[in-house]
Amino acid sequence: MEKPKFHLFVCSSARLTGEIKGVCAQKEGVDIARALIEEVQDRGIDDQVMVTTTGCLGLCSMGPVVMVYPEQTWYGKVAMGDVEEILDAIEEESVVERLLI
Amino acid sequence: MEKPKFHLFVCSSARLTGEIKGVCAQKEGVDIARALIEEVQDRGIDDQVMVTTTGCLGLCSMGPVVMVYPEQTWYGKVAMGDVEEILDAIEEESVVERLLI
Repeated sequence: MEKPKFHLFVCSSARLTGEIKGVCAQKEGVDIARALIEEVQDRGIDDQVMVTTTGCLGLCSMGPVVMVYPEQTWYGKVAMGDVEEILDAIEEESVVERLLI
Repeated sequence: MEKPKFHLFVCSSARLTGEIKGVCAQKEGVDIARALIEEVQDRGIDDQVMVTTTGCLGLCSMGPVVMVYPEQTWYGKVAMGDVEEILDAIEEESVVERLLI
């Protein structure tokens, strides 16, 4: 099947039990995921960019974490204000240097 | 920071609200994630292979789904009995053809 050019994974710290009590969730991980999904739709790039939430990535001190695959670009301490810049970088096939971990 | 050579994402269907009620969860998605994590540890390849659960991937009819990045290999209708074969393929840098979606 057709796959997205970019696949973003956003820690929302849901545990295997379904509980959300992790660091990234407390630090807006869920809001960032929602904002990325909405912004991808607004830009009309949802055929190229897929956004998925993840369970704990084990990088809690650097959360909220956003990972861009297949490039394997990892961003840490992401804030709501970084969402547009992350998507700008994806569209320009560059990276947001200051957020790299 | 050092990144894993392979990053496996396993749908466990946890929603943004934290609820687990999706198709993959009903179809053993959570057990498959646990089994992959345990098998990776048993094989001593946890420095190379990272396993992360995800929220709904939107491919519910093909669930449980396991994605291998950065290769972007997507497996569907994965069962507990497929866990060893998926990890064998990763170690051999090949794919499990019959599970590809």
